[in-house]
Amino acid sequence: MNESGRVEAFSDGIFAIAITLLVLQLAVDPHTKVVTSVDAWKALGHIWAAYDSYLVSFLVIGIMWLNHHTVFGYVARVDRGLLVLNLLLLLVVAALPFPTALVSDWLTKPGPAEVAVAVFSGFMVAHAVTFQSLWWWLTRTGHLFDKRVDAEAARRTRLRFAAGTIVYPILVGLSFVSPVLTLGLHLVLALYYAFNQLPIPLMPDAQADDEAAVAI
Amino acid sequence: MNESGRVEAFSDGIFAIAITLLVLQLAVDPHTKVVTSVDAWKALGHIWAAYDSYLVSFLVIGIMWLNHHTVFGYVARVDRGLLVLNLLLLLVVAALPFPTALVSDWLTKPGPAEVAVAVFSGFMVAHAVTFQSLWWWLTRTGHLFDKRVDAEAARRTRLRFAAGTIVYPILVGLSFVSPVLTLGLHLVLALYYAFNQLPIPLMPDAQADDEAAVAI
Amino acid sequence: MNESGRVEAFSDGIFAIAITLLVLQLAVDPHTKVVTSVDAWKALGHIWAAYDSYLVSFLVIGIMWLNHHTVFGYVARVDRGLLVLNLLLLLVVAALPFPTALVSDWLTKPGPAEVAVAVFSGFMVAHAVTFQSLWWWLTRTGHLFDKRVDAEAARRTRLRFAAGTIVYPILVGLSFVSPVLTLGLHLVLALYYAFNQLPIPLMPDAQADDEAAVAI
Amino acid sequence: MNESGRVEAFSDGIFAIAITLLVLQLAVDPHTKVVTSVDAWKALGHIWAAYDSYLVSFLVIGIMWLNHHTVFGYVARVDRGLLVLNLLLLLVVAALPFPTALVSDWLTKPGPAEVAVAVFSGFMVAHAVTFQSLWWWLTRTGHLFDKRVDAEAARRTRLRFAAGTIVYPILVGLSFVSPVLTLGLHLVLALYYAFNQLPIPLMPDAQADDEAAVAI
Repeated sequence: MNESGRVEAFSDGIFAIAITLLVLQLAVDPHTKVVTSVDAWKALGHIWAAYDSYLVSFLVIGIMWLNHHTVFGYVARVDRGLLVLNLLLLLVVAALPFPTALVSDWLTKPGPAEVAVAVFSGFMVAHAVTFQSLWWWLTRTGHLFDKRVDAEAARRTRLRFAAGTIVYPILVGLSFVSPVLTLGLHLVLALYYAFNQLPIPLMPDAQADDEAAVAI
Repeated sequence: MNESGRVEAFSDGIFAIAITLLVLQLAVDPHTKVVTSVDAWKALGHIWAAYDSYLVSFLVIGIMWLNHHTVFGYVARVDRGLLVLNLLLLLVVAALPFPTALVSDWLTKPGPAEVAVAVFSGFMVAHAVTFQSLWWWLTRTGHLFDKRVDAEAARRTRLRFAAGTIVYPILVGLSFVSPVLTLGLHLVLALYYAFNQLPIPLMPDAQADDEAAVAI
Repeated sequence: MNESGRVEAFSDGIFAIAITLLVLQLAVDPHTKVVTSVDAWKALGHIWAAYDSYLVSFLVIGIMWLNHHTVFGYVARVDRGLLVLNLLLLLVVAALPFPTALVSDWLTKPGPAEVAVAVFSGFMVAHAVTFQSLWWWLTRTGHLFDKRVDAEAARRTRLRFAAGTIVYPILVGLSFVSPVLTLGLHLVLALYYAFNQLPIPLMPDAQADDEAAVAI
Repeated sequence: MNESGRVEAFSDGIFAIAITLLVLQLAVDPHTKVVTSVDAWKALGHIWAAYDSYLVSFLVIGIMWLNHHTVFGYVARVDRGLLVLNLLLLLVVAALPFPTALVSDWLTKPGPAEVAVAVFSGFMVAHAVTFQSLWWWLTRTGHLFDKRVDAEAARRTRLRFAAGTIVYPILVGLSFVSPVLTLGLHLVLALYYAFNQLPIPLMPDAQADDEAAVAI
């Protein structure tokens, strides 16, 4: 395994664990009295906010992994700066079960719902910032990319990438208008990023060989 | 590692974590008063439903992994569609500790037992649907398979595969007749799939080389 | 990665997660009133059984991994039988945080302590049985080993291996005489197996090449 | 994968799980009454000690991983001694969520805060001791290193390395003077080690080839 492969394996581990720990908040309150079938259905219906937040957070972390994975697929070398920026990104990813649990607990209560979704959106801002920093670090000189990447063109994507992420701070504000709508927008954004890959610019002669990889 | 290997490593991580988190529901209620040996044995006997659901879910997830792993062993390339379908499959797998905990908590109470096993069966339907979707996506053109696979023949397996999974919706209904029997049938089905591999059709000249892999 | 490598990666994941989940039982009871330094030290001293069981279980699972890993280092091919036996072994390993928590909770109470350590010893019997089964399956014909292994000689080790594991059923009985002593013996046995590797017999011409591996 | 790669994969798994389990202590006390937005913000502000300990522990474990990873990048062979010393190191790493939770729970109470941070610092001493032992074992003869490493020079680093770690016992003492300051110093030390790599001495002819790796 090359250097980049080992960092990616460690990162993949953290993504996989964070995404799987989300299930711990899918639980019926143990103090609920459940005697009949009707009680059971009611107890399950009562925690609809937990299903919503599980679904949104699972897809959000899954798409974060997809994009992290796409970028690292073009990284051939790592330096200390990249390792530290990657660690900061993982710090945010590993913490996501926390705002997810807040949404799950508070989404049914008007006031706290706003706070929970605002905090969740704040974590998305933090993720966008760390991911941008990683991209800026990589495109600064481009010497960490493998030779397929057109480093010149990659540097020119920086502003466009940054522009794409200003939507997240707006969602922090929108949380105080409608928490449920904001949560839905996070889902829509995750699906958008699922199907709209990061357009990493390749050298002309690498594009032919690389069609399969680009398709990812 | 090729593209398929990296997706499989991430998926393996989620399977491994989901299967290991099942142990968290194997716990004696901390409010049980345990003073003598007899109390201790009673407390352990009291949670028999937790052992049952642990056993069934562990084997079910284990066999899901086996089959996921067998299919991906023949995948040479991945595209965005496959990644997204795989993410939906993992969303179901990672959530399985939730219905397992429901079974563990409610199996001893007649009414809620039906609900718990029906929800568990519902998750098995969801898994079957996502696994089928993944198989249909792969066999649509077969261009993601490696060259050992007979793509024509693989496409012809689709209906037979789909037929095999209609048993799971039936088990949702059966949950309301006998939850314990239904749970037992999930165990039997898992064992059946453990010993009856997915019959992925190979090209004639690949079969000789590939005997070891087929045996898996 | 060859077939054996992929099975080992999944198994390594389960070993790593089970061993790390042990930390969840290292916790001060949240109902303990802690106001002064003295309260804090007392609360920490109060859970000595949790430290003991953490230490024993961590080393036990760690050594189980070491031996599992050594055996799979000589496996070149896998078949369905091996996969299913390995899954049963992992079912026991993944469940070990459960008896560890029992020991942690009950070791300070004479009667329940016996039950907890007997259950813990019972899990060690189950692990020994599944590990033996895996070894018998591998040595039955030896066709799954890579070519360094002397399959004839490996088959002759079976009885000696089996003899080594009769100590675990004895520890189940001893739990009712002295739980703490029995726990100590599990630690001693783990350390014994840490330094006394499985003697997998190699072909004469493989031994020279393989010195490094044998040293493991 | 060579022998060292497999040990590293298992170790990486434990590092990744331990670092991700830290999120479990980021939780609002379920008994807090949260009705309005103000309650929600207050509840989030109330657990500032949990954010602090999450941040410090995440970076500490992350940097531990970085250094573990750097050292194993130069290890070509493993023996039983190395495996057992590595297992002891992992025992400490996997336990770190425990002192982290203590800090999180007790940092706001003057007396218990001292105890919590002292215990946390004690775990850092234990980590330093096991990491030193591993380094001494490796540099004893140097026969486990790959051929890039200058084994002679590596052995001469031992005292300097050991000198670097006497700072941790001092922090145990300092915990009783100012727990918050001590926690801050752990953060500073982690950042120091993030940017000051372990200076593993290389053979003169390996340095040219190895510039990229050294840069890590």
